[in-house]
Amino acid sequence: MFISKLIPLKEALSKVEENISLMDTEVIDLKDSCGRVLSKGIKSYHNSPPFDKSAMDGYALIAEDTFGASNSVIKDLKIIDRIGAGDFSDKTVGHGEAIVIATGAPIPEGANAVLMKEFTYENGDVLEIHSQVTPGENISPTAEDIAEGDEVLSRNALIRPQEMGLIASAGHSEVEVYKKPRVKLIITGNELVEPSDTLDKAKIINSNKYTISAMIESAGACVEIEHGLDNYCDVKEAIDKASKEFDVVITTGGTAISKGDVVVDVVEDLGEVLFHGVALRPGRPVGAGIVNDTMVFMLSGQPVAAMGQFDVFARYCLFRMQGMDYTHNIVKRESATKIPSSLGRTDYIRAFADDEKVHHILNRGSGIIRSMVEANCYIIIDENHEGIEKGDTVDLVFFRDMAWPSL
Amino acid sequence: MFISKLIPLKEALSKVEENISLMDTEVIDLKDSCGRVLSKGIKSYHNSPPFDKSAMDGYALIAEDTFGASNSVIKDLKIIDRIGAGDFSDKTVGHGEAIVIATGAPIPEGANAVLMKEFTYENGDVLEIHSQVTPGENISPTAEDIAEGDEVLSRNALIRPQEMGLIASAGHSEVEVYKKPRVKLIITGNELVEPSDTLDKAKIINSNKYTISAMIESAGACVEIEHGLDNYCDVKEAIDKASKEFDVVITTGGTAISKGDVVVDVVEDLGEVLFHGVALRPGRPVGAGIVNDTMVFMLSGQPVAAMGQFDVFARYCLFRMQGMDYTHNIVKRESATKIPSSLGRTDYIRAFADDEKVHHILNRGSGIIRSMVEANCYIIIDENHEGIEKGDTVDLVFFRDMAWPSL
Repeated sequence: MFISKLIPLKEALSKVEENISLMDTEVIDLKDSCGRVLSKGIKSYHNSPPFDKSAMDGYALIAEDTFGASNSVIKDLKIIDRIGAGDFSDKTVGHGEAIVIATGAPIPEGANAVLMKEFTYENGDVLEIHSQVTPGENISPTAEDIAEGDEVLSRNALIRPQEMGLIASAGHSEVEVYKKPRVKLIITGNELVEPSDTLDKAKIINSNKYTISAMIESAGACVEIEHGLDNYCDVKEAIDKASKEFDVVITTGGTAISKGDVVVDVVEDLGEVLFHGVALRPGRPVGAGIVNDTMVFMLSGQPVAAMGQFDVFARYCLFRMQGMDYTHNIVKRESATKIPSSLGRTDYIRAFADDEKVHHILNRGSGIIRSMVEANCYIIIDENHEGIEKGDTVDLVFFRDMAWPSL
Repeated sequence: MFISKLIPLKEALSKVEENISLMDTEVIDLKDSCGRVLSKGIKSYHNSPPFDKSAMDGYALIAEDTFGASNSVIKDLKIIDRIGAGDFSDKTVGHGEAIVIATGAPIPEGANAVLMKEFTYENGDVLEIHSQVTPGENISPTAEDIAEGDEVLSRNALIRPQEMGLIASAGHSEVEVYKKPRVKLIITGNELVEPSDTLDKAKIINSNKYTISAMIESAGACVEIEHGLDNYCDVKEAIDKASKEFDVVITTGGTAISKGDVVVDVVEDLGEVLFHGVALRPGRPVGAGIVNDTMVFMLSGQPVAAMGQFDVFARYCLFRMQGMDYTHNIVKRESATKIPSSLGRTDYIRAFADDEKVHHILNRGSGIIRSMVEANCYIIIDENHEGIEKGDTVDLVFFRDMAWPSL
């Protein structure tokens, strides 16, 4: 199948969007949940803190007893008990009394404030205080963080370390999340060999195997790689099988002029081609289709084109399948150079941005992996703009902002 | 050991810096290397491309034969061979001749350009062309990307998917990288229980176990967790053992007023306390020390303070041990609210930034994990500033920019 007409990027993305379905869910251990997305909200089983607790190491006392105390007016209280972390006291604090209390320990009956250690001097069971506190000071009240029954996180929340802490505090040691998509990466190309192989004439090292599989993982998915020949029968068998066993199929290469565009022909024969050919640079020959109800992305064999196509289409799909938004975090910079582009085409231009300017990386063809190594962002020029002048403010997206977020 | 004097953040960080040493190195499979840091530069074993290759599906020919061809002036050439991907041709292209060529295939002898398929019509072995090309057009010349012997990546480069592609193209299937630091996380606190345990009086769910271990992993390290009691002997045995077996030791909690600050006492007795008490909010009681030549970070038991202390100190150390810079990617935003702070203290203020403004999250104590869940960044107010007025431009760092970078 030859590309007859390029469709606009927006139209191609909406064809992908229409065919995305959310992943099934699974229950996993909380400790393994960082970076996953909740498929069900979290309700708290507890108040947190479960009791009025001390926010400081100090002395639980009656605030009114401290009024007027200062460096020149020392007041004395009587120490009647000591509460370490994990302990509690059965005693009740009366006027003129104090209980030694550790951070996190429950406030004893009678007390309404905690005076920090720094403002006191202990002399046997006599506590000399030289500062005052207000009622409630240095106390974290019951349910200050979470009330029992509250929904503390809602569906589709990304689990970062702090969400793990909140979920634990809510009393859960397991969470229900979307499964990670399982992706079959089919690398086609008779000419591709391994890095350690001898480079006979016409052979090229299979770098897509490394770049695209790492990008699949950086989109929160799992990958299995197959390197196949690019004849119709082998490609057909590989895509048919993979589409039945995996959540997404991604192919690279497989264009051989003598036989037409094998991968696109196969997808057309096994299912439906959603589009083939997008007004996008680099990456124009990209295609997507549906085979056995499974999304198939057909990327170029050219390494840089394939990476760009992955970022624009496959990453979008993989994020959305896991309940995550995928909107570019657009940053503005001044362009240090003039950049040509054509009306009617969206350009994702490899560039390096520092704090002030963005530098276009001279683009010597889409096979040049080094241009991606030198880059830290894409400048995006939409289809309604024709080129960028030096000094223009341009939109860009940092690569690091396109990866699956962690922290 | 009680905090006698708070030291400035800069001074504390330089005490950490002086004690950081790079990790040992290891050789790993290229396929497992995404997110690792090279401990040795990569030299290329090959030219890439290894031969002049076609950048397009089209026809290898002599550019001069196409001069003058257009939609109204069709020229005819004779097709003398066909080269698929991975193939090559022994034939030499002469004037008036063309060879069908696939993207990536080697340019045959005699040809000096490739004419794209779109501008041609094949009629048996006659090729009708209606466009012209210049010499060199659509050819990726030998070594365009990499020349044999070039250092394509230098020591301390982070391996992203594109670096993996470049390393593969350079002929390497293995890389030498810094080992991931192995971190022992010792959670102290008699009061801490698991999320699924019954919350008896004075017990609190151990959320640090989840948050801090996930943060250790998001700093590129591996973690093993131990939950210990907070008495001197147990803590001493745990820190002594861990400091002999791990690259870094991180503790949380362990402050019990009745017995002093157990963890700091232990570190002082086993080795050296570098500092204890920093002019930092939240996180003032943070400490660091050296035991058996191993860095020990002493974080608070309070979840939010512990996370902030981790981000400021432990994350810095773990990045640097792996040959990575750790400088905050500072972003400017307008503050939507007034924020108090004190001269002489550095504040890391939990906040939520959108595209225009940053909103201070009302801080109801350092135990409130929910404030970290609502936040996506820290506003940083350095020690030379006293508060922020509404409308001021402030410095902030997004959490996502502090995580180990991927993509």
